Amino acid sequence: MYKAGRHFLQIPGPTNVPDRILRAIDAPTIDHRSAQFAELACFCLEGMKEIFQTTSPVIIYSASGTGAWEAALVNTLRQGDLVLTVETGQFGRLWANVARNLGLRVEVIPTDWRHGVDAAEVQARLAADPKREIAAVMIVHNETSTGVTSDVPSVRGALDTESHPALLMVDTISSLASIDYRHDEWGVDVSVGGSQKGLMLPPGLSFNAVSAKALDAAANRATLPNSFWRWDAMLEFNARGFFPFTPATNLLYGLREALHMLREEGLARVFSRHQRLAQATRKAVCGWGLEVVAQNPGEYSNTLTGVLMPEGHDEAHLRGVILDRFNMALGAGLGKLAGRAFRIGHLGDFNSLTLAGTLAGVQMGLELADVPHASGDVEAALRCLTAQAREQ
Amino acid sequence: MYKAGRHFLQIPGPTNVPDRILRAIDAPTIDHRSAQFAELACFCLEGMKEIFQTTSPVIIYSASGTGAWEAALVNTLRQGDLVLTVETGQFGRLWANVARNLGLRVEVIPTDWRHGVDAAEVQARLAADPKREIAAVMIVHNETSTGVTSDVPSVRGALDTESHPALLMVDTISSLASIDYRHDEWGVDVSVGGSQKGLMLPPGLSFNAVSAKALDAAANRATLPNSFWRWDAMLEFNARGFFPFTPATNLLYGLREALHMLREEGLARVFSRHQRLAQATRKAVCGWGLEVVAQNPGEYSNTLTGVLMPEGHDEAHLRGVILDRFNMALGAGLGKLAGRAFRIGHLGDFNSLTLAGTLAGVQMGLELADVPHASGDVEAALRCLTAQAREQ
Amino acid sequence: MYKAGRHFLQIPGPTNVPDRILRAIDAPTIDHRSAQFAELACFCLEGMKEIFQTTSPVIIYSASGTGAWEAALVNTLRQGDLVLTVETGQFGRLWANVARNLGLRVEVIPTDWRHGVDAAEVQARLAADPKREIAAVMIVHNETSTGVTSDVPSVRGALDTESHPALLMVDTISSLASIDYRHDEWGVDVSVGGSQKGLMLPPGLSFNAVSAKALDAAANRATLPNSFWRWDAMLEFNARGFFPFTPATNLLYGLREALHMLREEGLARVFSRHQRLAQATRKAVCGWGLEVVAQNPGEYSNTLTGVLMPEGHDEAHLRGVILDRFNMALGAGLGKLAGRAFRIGHLGDFNSLTLAGTLAGVQMGLELADVPHASGDVEAALRCLTAQAREQ
Amino acid sequence: MYKAGRHFLQIPGPTNVPDRILRAIDAPTIDHRSAQFAELACFCLEGMKEIFQTTSPVIIYSASGTGAWEAALVNTLRQGDLVLTVETGQFGRLWANVARNLGLRVEVIPTDWRHGVDAAEVQARLAADPKREIAAVMIVHNETSTGVTSDVPSVRGALDTESHPALLMVDTISSLASIDYRHDEWGVDVSVGGSQKGLMLPPGLSFNAVSAKALDAAANRATLPNSFWRWDAMLEFNARGFFPFTPATNLLYGLREALHMLREEGLARVFSRHQRLAQATRKAVCGWGLEVVAQNPGEYSNTLTGVLMPEGHDEAHLRGVILDRFNMALGAGLGKLAGRAFRIGHLGDFNSLTLAGTLAGVQMGLELADVPHASGDVEAALRCLTAQAREQ
Repeated sequence: MYKAGRHFLQIPGPTNVPDRILRAIDAPTIDHRSAQFAELACFCLEGMKEIFQTTSPVIIYSASGTGAWEAALVNTLRQGDLVLTVETGQFGRLWANVARNLGLRVEVIPTDWRHGVDAAEVQARLAADPKREIAAVMIVHNETSTGVTSDVPSVRGALDTESHPALLMVDTISSLASIDYRHDEWGVDVSVGGSQKGLMLPPGLSFNAVSAKALDAAANRATLPNSFWRWDAMLEFNARGFFPFTPATNLLYGLREALHMLREEGLARVFSRHQRLAQATRKAVCGWGLEVVAQNPGEYSNTLTGVLMPEGHDEAHLRGVILDRFNMALGAGLGKLAGRAFRIGHLGDFNSLTLAGTLAGVQMGLELADVPHASGDVEAALRCLTAQAREQ
Repeated sequence: MYKAGRHFLQIPGPTNVPDRILRAIDAPTIDHRSAQFAELACFCLEGMKEIFQTTSPVIIYSASGTGAWEAALVNTLRQGDLVLTVETGQFGRLWANVARNLGLRVEVIPTDWRHGVDAAEVQARLAADPKREIAAVMIVHNETSTGVTSDVPSVRGALDTESHPALLMVDTISSLASIDYRHDEWGVDVSVGGSQKGLMLPPGLSFNAVSAKALDAAANRATLPNSFWRWDAMLEFNARGFFPFTPATNLLYGLREALHMLREEGLARVFSRHQRLAQATRKAVCGWGLEVVAQNPGEYSNTLTGVLMPEGHDEAHLRGVILDRFNMALGAGLGKLAGRAFRIGHLGDFNSLTLAGTLAGVQMGLELADVPHASGDVEAALRCLTAQAREQ
Repeated sequence: MYKAGRHFLQIPGPTNVPDRILRAIDAPTIDHRSAQFAELACFCLEGMKEIFQTTSPVIIYSASGTGAWEAALVNTLRQGDLVLTVETGQFGRLWANVARNLGLRVEVIPTDWRHGVDAAEVQARLAADPKREIAAVMIVHNETSTGVTSDVPSVRGALDTESHPALLMVDTISSLASIDYRHDEWGVDVSVGGSQKGLMLPPGLSFNAVSAKALDAAANRATLPNSFWRWDAMLEFNARGFFPFTPATNLLYGLREALHMLREEGLARVFSRHQRLAQATRKAVCGWGLEVVAQNPGEYSNTLTGVLMPEGHDEAHLRGVILDRFNMALGAGLGKLAGRAFRIGHLGDFNSLTLAGTLAGVQMGLELADVPHASGDVEAALRCLTAQAREQ
Repeated sequence: MYKAGRHFLQIPGPTNVPDRILRAIDAPTIDHRSAQFAELACFCLEGMKEIFQTTSPVIIYSASGTGAWEAALVNTLRQGDLVLTVETGQFGRLWANVARNLGLRVEVIPTDWRHGVDAAEVQARLAADPKREIAAVMIVHNETSTGVTSDVPSVRGALDTESHPALLMVDTISSLASIDYRHDEWGVDVSVGGSQKGLMLPPGLSFNAVSAKALDAAANRATLPNSFWRWDAMLEFNARGFFPFTPATNLLYGLREALHMLREEGLARVFSRHQRLAQATRKAVCGWGLEVVAQNPGEYSNTLTGVLMPEGHDEAHLRGVILDRFNMALGAGLGKLAGRAFRIGHLGDFNSLTLAGTLAGVQMGLELADVPHASGDVEAALRCLTAQAREQ
């Protein structure tokens, strides 16, 4: 049934796929062993290095982001290895589960799901590991379930200070190509990304950016049985522009277009755009008298905002009203925030007017769902956007 | 160059073409003499009758709407005929120019471009035409340059009261499939429509709905030389699902999809959606302390709103700022409103959140362009939309 | 209902629209008064000059090719003017009908529909026009109903030899961008083209290339009433990248892509490709023992081949069998060739293997429809294509 | 650079993606936790059961087919398990490598790569396994590297005769939805499929159809560490129309369309179409005097034909000539057939005329590349296709 006007897909990913990318995907599949394909693949493989801000190789998987989590682990670790994680939210938790499923020992530093990684805590735990049993530290740069961004360099600092040899693995799924992320400068060993967020693609591709140290672990230390995720086979084939198996060619067409678009706008401008729109979003939330999930302003996410519901009000009901009346999808509360918080995605192919529509939908939904809130603060967001525009 | 987020095309047509229609158009062209084509054509020809609310034939031209204006005239009139028009705005003026170009005598009833057709004036003129020299009365149902909707039945009433035999010709280009329009019930002889407004298609198709009386004039009275626009050839071929020449097949694919979508929503709901969104738009304009071009609330257009600039402020500058900063196109001031009024299109594939984004863009643009206005009245629109949603 | 594999659209237009063009069309419509639009329009207007091989202006109509026939006449002629045409086939006949519909006097030089224009006959008639009553000579460069190409320069020669001031108007609808056509060099005054043949677009755009002499006639001599087709308004708006009315923007997107594609291949290579594929087609026809409609090898068309059926066999039946069994559409016999000849379109986005499939479909259809023919001469075509490939 | 006419993608997968599927994929991504998504997922999950001819669950992976090979193993086996495979060609070999990578013991029954699985050999090996150490028998239904189809029921028979409890795992990647394949009736425990062959989709989705016995092994016996490929998590989420992680939504749009298309044609007709086109292909190969890789007519593949080059001629050179001159991609010789055989893909969205074009391209390529062959046997294929058409 036709519902007039555009659907607002304001979950924190998959994000709204721009027309240019959809049209790029909508092209006949080509022979994945042809010179034409090799050109496509090389362009994408090189381009992804810019996105991760690395000179190391980036692996492109024809699989969901969850697969790239698994890839990071199976390529580098041994059975029974201990990994240290910080549960900053649902995705931190799920990645830990992947590690457990693979037979790794997992130690979790908990949080209240309203703060990012505490590097001091990580450091304390590393200090208490004289035998260097911890093989990897896994953190989520931007926790998609809460809207909290962690300080990756501080965790690197903790490892360095303790001269701990553990690999640093970082999930940048909902920050890549939206929030500044520096694989090389920050000394990350494996970065994990996905296609359906800042890259503006449909889901179906995922990424590992891998440091020399990670590659060394893969070659000389890892024993976890695996095949599909093997970096060595990938790198061997990628060197000639190919893949060890049939890749998702049409999504690669989309990736090529996304890389062109990101170059046109420029990563620096992409980051500042996300920063500005996130700021305006928080102005509105604050104006409604609602609470942002993230408690530390320094950790506010620029790609999504988790919003706590007033006591006694269900986020699922609110989202249902908004979907039904205003044709907008918002992110559900996940894990221990289920029922208690909803999430506004403001990332990817997104601009001021789409944000204005989004915030208007939230505000009208609050009203219709009888959620107590201060009135009128789409205006606060608009004032903020206007001030930003003046400064640009 | 990639500009992040969706472009807001808020001119009063062409309107935002929904994805379903773009994808329908993006299909291989077929043989225009095949059974498959005949099925497509018959579906479209029948469907357009529903849209015009007529049981008479509708002619589909593979040409811009301007062509359908010409078609209405050349099929029915004789060289030197007198036609009576009311210049409700720029499009009324242009249609009169078409008539002049064709060698017709044109008599114009002027307006201040802020009111619709005054049926009493028309009636007075008809009364003063004892020799029945006036061969046709041409009016614009919804004047796209001003946002004023005229009362077609009252003009029909004027003709009937005077028992005047002139043909009634009505331009419904920017009202068709958006504002209730009834070709049969209102006794219109030739209705003129286009594809790029309420039908949500790209430009390239236009329409004539023709009464029995108009067909009779075409067969027995008309002498203006013409070929491409001939109804008789069209109707002869259309009877078998074909066209006398190669039609714009891919746009017909789009028209079929548009007809499906309009049936899914239902014309009544389409009309009330436009009515509600227009009302909310005016709330915002009024809240800003700006003046709507239309002066008679009974004539407010439901598809676009013309907004007067405060003295000394140029609409082109405002629109430039908004396009540059917010990636939104608004309608220019046309004809004698050039520089003095801009137009907000709120028709076609459009909903509450897109409207909210649109109004936010206007408001922020007013601010940035230093156009004096009362602050904060996107909120007024949102309150209106919320109240509407409660009632639905 | 899904029919496996690609449909072969081998009518002589509309032709198979390549994916790149369909995808270009499948993009959101933009404001036709924006700078972005002006860039698109200017690119298309300039590019079309290359296609017509002219430095004079080209007019782009948002209308079928039939409209551009009419445009050529109404812009340049006076009511009652005499035009001289050569009826080389159905399209020559139809264009003459357009002239009659417009109130012109039409004198027709007949042919047997198997030969092109006889310049000597034209010259003789011009010589017998001491009062210079003939205002225009209208011919079809490539007669789509027969597959006969006429020698335009020889007709120009006839006019020049007689120093006759008549305008030379040429329909290049099914030759433009496929067979070498030189508006300037050949001294044509108005060339008429369409989008759905060599330009590989869907139908919906048409063209007039106009000489200085034609423009002069338009400005100083023409009196036929018209409005939509007016060159002067077009040229005035085109100068700034705009149109006097809303153009078929999405088809212009397609035109831009087509122009890019034709530049990539290069017009010279486009022409020789059509020449080679046509030659191979005739080898097959000849091998089947069937007769090509065109009788003069110097006039064989490079874009389509008309094939005569053996006595007592109906082309419509054959085409029906082929469409039903092999999912291929061939061109019907038109006018006096109805029932007696079918047409194989081999133009536009077309290559050796598509031709091989096409000819295989014809041959198998002849067999299944019990049309007497010599066996096995797809092979003749393949031998020809192979020899051509060797030489390239 | 534009190369005129359609590219012929006649590798044995990815296959030519029909326009309907490309357009379905080219639609905005939706919330993968919405009711609308659940409807899509349920339709696809149910539809895939029809395709596998099973009432058991089918798992849909957002990953390449190689991943589904791995999934079959990691869900059901223990570390150190022995698996028995038959190396019918390169893909049999690669699947065995996957098993080795996962730490399984692999026993390979070799073949000459020109015959299918010999069930008697399998049975003999099973008989010699009194301790029932063999945990799984892995075979390839249709070996994509050779064009040999194996008799799955005979292998089932071998297991049954020996009352051997090993799981039967079958790769149906290049036969699914093209050659009759019956997961339930044939008693297969895990069937492995991919999207880019008979399903006519781009690559990026893969499948496991799983028997009750396989599910039991997954629940009660398997110990290989794994996470992404887990059936239990998939089935738990699938029950509600969801996935445990973000799925490749846009490819699922394509899958839905593919399922509609296959229903429209009907699986039985799909199978017989492939059978007929394969037969015609072999007629041509035989007519050229070239040898089909498959030696047993009962094992000829209906989806691809491997063709041996005459001694001293390199298939890569031939394919290069054909790609360059005729814009057609053929399948390379793989593994021990590299340089010695090429492969003609004739599966998916394919019909008689596309086959004719394909065979013409091969024949002309043989000529141009100076590969010795008998002349003129595209005709043999056409005679065959004609005879088939008469019988339909």
